Amino acid sequence: MSVPPPRNLRTRLADSRARLAEDRDCWVATAGPQGPWMIPLSFLWTADALVLATDRDSRVVKDLLAQPVVRVGVGSTRDVVIVHGRATVLEPGDVDEAIWEAYAHKLGSDPRSWADAAVLVTPERIQAWREENELQGRDLMEGGRWLGD
Amino acid sequence: MSVPPPRNLRTRLADSRARLAEDRDCWVATAGPQGPWMIPLSFLWTADALVLATDRDSRVVKDLLAQPVVRVGVGSTRDVVIVHGRATVLEPGDVDEAIWEAYAHKLGSDPRSWADAAVLVTPERIQAWREENELQGRDLMEGGRWLGD
Repeated sequence: MSVPPPRNLRTRLADSRARLAEDRDCWVATAGPQGPWMIPLSFLWTADALVLATDRDSRVVKDLLAQPVVRVGVGSTRDVVIVHGRATVLEPGDVDEAIWEAYAHKLGSDPRSWADAAVLVTPERIQAWREENELQGRDLMEGGRWLGD
Repeated sequence: MSVPPPRNLRTRLADSRARLAEDRDCWVATAGPQGPWMIPLSFLWTADALVLATDRDSRVVKDLLAQPVVRVGVGSTRDVVIVHGRATVLEPGDVDEAIWEAYAHKLGSDPRSWADAAVLVTPERIQAWREENELQGRDLMEGGRWLGD
């Protein structure tokens, strides 16, 4: 297989923001007393947070209420955006209506009709890479601040 | 979007085994004192274990040496196979040569030339689903035993 040359920071930022805006689903990893957990969930990206909707009694929510660190993978395993951040669990009614409208518009399903927990992920670190040759320069955000902006 | 009808157990088993045999990469989730970790890695499936190769000083290996529970996601988020199991970390030289030969044959890269840790994942539970309508009946393996065999 021929591997394309590594993208520069500007291109990775643009590609990654497009992925966050357009991709529908992500892998969500949490940790609890029984060890790691990881499931796919739909998401909305609001330019500064990633919004998930799920059940309050799900393992994801239980883990996050005990330890609010979350790691989210978007894209395929050879074209990855990884968001590492802090999660806040809210009642859906405590989230801005505009967010659920954007979620419903993007995903064709309004969580206010089926979810009883919202998870807001505030990113601290974002990385993106495709092949091995992009591991260097994979940092797009550090300490909650976009690089190169 | 039209959602296809749910697959039966036999079809899910066949599809999932094909995915495990043919897919090249997976998401690997572990838990450590700093919380969840998740990265993409290439894998080989040997019919009863999932084999990963990586660096001994990686976060994945550190987490697994402390707590050997691992969760692996294969496929896209709307066509998922999830393997939940126990991990054993070995020196690459302590793994059967035939496994590395199969790995190199499948992935075009022999970990004996670049990895200093092998992770063998023994599955305890395997689940597979596509859309919401497949969440029921998603269990393919329980307690290390394939269902329907």
